[in-house]
Amino acid sequence: MTGEERLARAALTRVVEPGDETAGRWLRELGAAEVARRLVRGGKPLPGVTDARWEGLRARAARARPRQDLDEAERAGARFVCPGEPEWPAQLDDLGDARPTGLWVRGRPSLRMWALRSVAVVGARACTEYGAHMAAVLGSGLAERGWVVVSGGAYGVDGAAHRGALGAGGATVAVLACGVDRPYPRGHTRLIGRIAEQGLVVGELPPGEHPTPSRFILRNRVIAALTRGTVVVEAAYRSGALVTARAAQRLGRFTMGVPGPATSGLSAGVHALLRQEAVLVSDAAEVAELVGDIGELAPDKRGPVLPRDLLEPGAAQVLAALPARDTASAADIARGAGTTEDDAIGRLYELRSLGFVERHGDGWKLTRQARSPAAVGPPVPDPACSAVRANPDSLGNSRS
Amino acid sequence: MTGEERLARAALTRVVEPGDETAGRWLRELGAAEVARRLVRGGKPLPGVTDARWEGLRARAARARPRQDLDEAERAGARFVCPGEPEWPAQLDDLGDARPTGLWVRGRPSLRMWALRSVAVVGARACTEYGAHMAAVLGSGLAERGWVVVSGGAYGVDGAAHRGALGAGGATVAVLACGVDRPYPRGHTRLIGRIAEQGLVVGELPPGEHPTPSRFILRNRVIAALTRGTVVVEAAYRSGALVTARAAQRLGRFTMGVPGPATSGLSAGVHALLRQEAVLVSDAAEVAELVGDIGELAPDKRGPVLPRDLLEPGAAQVLAALPARDTASAADIARGAGTTEDDAIGRLYELRSLGFVERHGDGWKLTRQARSPAAVGPPVPDPACSAVRANPDSLGNSRS
Repeated sequence: MTGEERLARAALTRVVEPGDETAGRWLRELGAAEVARRLVRGGKPLPGVTDARWEGLRARAARARPRQDLDEAERAGARFVCPGEPEWPAQLDDLGDARPTGLWVRGRPSLRMWALRSVAVVGARACTEYGAHMAAVLGSGLAERGWVVVSGGAYGVDGAAHRGALGAGGATVAVLACGVDRPYPRGHTRLIGRIAEQGLVVGELPPGEHPTPSRFILRNRVIAALTRGTVVVEAAYRSGALVTARAAQRLGRFTMGVPGPATSGLSAGVHALLRQEAVLVSDAAEVAELVGDIGELAPDKRGPVLPRDLLEPGAAQVLAALPARDTASAADIARGAGTTEDDAIGRLYELRSLGFVERHGDGWKLTRQARSPAAVGPPVPDPACSAVRANPDSLGNSRS
Repeated sequence: MTGEERLARAALTRVVEPGDETAGRWLRELGAAEVARRLVRGGKPLPGVTDARWEGLRARAARARPRQDLDEAERAGARFVCPGEPEWPAQLDDLGDARPTGLWVRGRPSLRMWALRSVAVVGARACTEYGAHMAAVLGSGLAERGWVVVSGGAYGVDGAAHRGALGAGGATVAVLACGVDRPYPRGHTRLIGRIAEQGLVVGELPPGEHPTPSRFILRNRVIAALTRGTVVVEAAYRSGALVTARAAQRLGRFTMGVPGPATSGLSAGVHALLRQEAVLVSDAAEVAELVGDIGELAPDKRGPVLPRDLLEPGAAQVLAALPARDTASAADIARGAGTTEDDAIGRLYELRSLGFVERHGDGWKLTRQARSPAAVGPPVPDPACSAVRANPDSLGNSRS
């Protein structure tokens, strides 16, 4: 990704609404820089939009100030992550042309790493005491099992799930339908601040943008695509949480529902879901059993997620064979990992794309991030982690 | 079925415990009369039992007084129905050698007809208010839709389901684990009396027999086999209601569960079931949709079951072609029904086995029962029905 492409994508997050598949096709076919140039230059509309729509996009494009946005984001502790970059969660590509143009990310951990082992817990804003209880218990139980709890930062079920994860000292991600510098709802300003400090606050919209009804709805596809599965805790028939669940189903993710009284309108949507494809879950263990890899889930795996926990055994072995500070040849690393040189080289490129290793001439060495085992770890304000925070570009996202 | 076979089967209901597959095999291979003779005569045990067990059965057989039992049953308003007889519900044969030896039946309606359109509603004795509410609502809702509600007559969910059906003026069947003259639990004496008056009280055990833990468990297979599906309302992990549900599953019947709070131990068994094969249901409409024939379930079909409603269209047409009082030839009936004589004759024999028609020389006429459209209908004490009650043998169960 060139600096120009990055800048153009950052600009387009203010121009193109989330989930716009027509614009997604332009990006795929022409690249972001060319789409941005055409919008600025004017002339014949790109295919699939009316003249009026095209003029609307042009008016937005004329006001876009991506460098200012990137600076403002940085001041708010946020970075911009583009498709294909090392921190980009590859599973978002399952959205096809509805894939986000880019993501604004607040918080220290690697979104890509966290998303690998994440579950969405979503539900009604106006939930019952029971719904809030179940969301909190699932949030803490999943966090205790090493799962990252993803939700929408809203009142009700979302907030309870985030708080449950935070309370267990675990990992949580809020996906917002507005700028990540601009907590919504206002009543969750402190909660979202805590999530940004201990976890991640993520969104498709650039700094200062407000949520709209359609942005809420389209935000849900990101929650569904980012995670291995979606649990709906309480939802009336027309709840947005069901949008997330159905998106998860379409994307081939696990879809789960927490049962409630058949007499409760706030469980009716969940029950409808459970009568279709979704799996009934009563606690975090059942969620973890479903979304976890077979055999991976030791009972009561506790504590925050460490990057090495997320690697496949083969890759973890190669990573362990790298010296602490020096450079090593692929042949030496292969010997240390007990594998062939070919396999080791494949793993090393994989580890490089995840930000663990870097090439130095003919050899390989650990990145600074990989040398700190807590890099994507405990969200406590630990000074030992400041190296990572001070060098957010170590994952490769050079700012333009 | 000869009088001797009937009498032997009646005797064996006091000798053989419900669900005894060894004895079931003897009955299938030798016939009931021969099994009874061997038990009385003694000698080498029949295959599959120890000498001690054989002597135990012989001791019971020596005390059996089937004629007295049949008389006593008749005084209690009960009859004895054997496999293969017109009132025998053929779906019980799905139990194989665990099929009941015979059933003691209290109440006016035809068990066979009612079972054709029945659903079991079962659950915990010590249910919550929520469970009792759901059972009552399902009981009344199913009854209003023309379904017969089958349950075990117990406290809690069972009782609420029966009461719901009775309260809606509908049809309900209690399957007991003791003699049908001997209501259990005692606290349900009045309820079971009402069921016997307005519906049916059924059991495998002869007059005076007590329930035992294994009889409760084995009773559940009869509930499962008799009905098109089983709904579990509330059940802890080791509840007997789950035995019924699993039996229903094995028998290829529909298995359904009513969700409840994930925090409720009394819903934990239901949720475990819903995580396996069972379908989540929230109301009677969802149950009816599942167990009903496609297209059969018009919205809100109300009122009690009429026998004609239960017939296939072809059989119903042949039935409609019979004159009100006179005898008609198969050829005339075929013409009236718009079918071939061969088809009409097949249907007529089918209708005879169901008690609708009888042969008179070369012709066919309606039975007295079939002439009263309410014959298996409203369980209200309607004098118009007394003809049926006065002539319980019209279904062909001649008493020995």
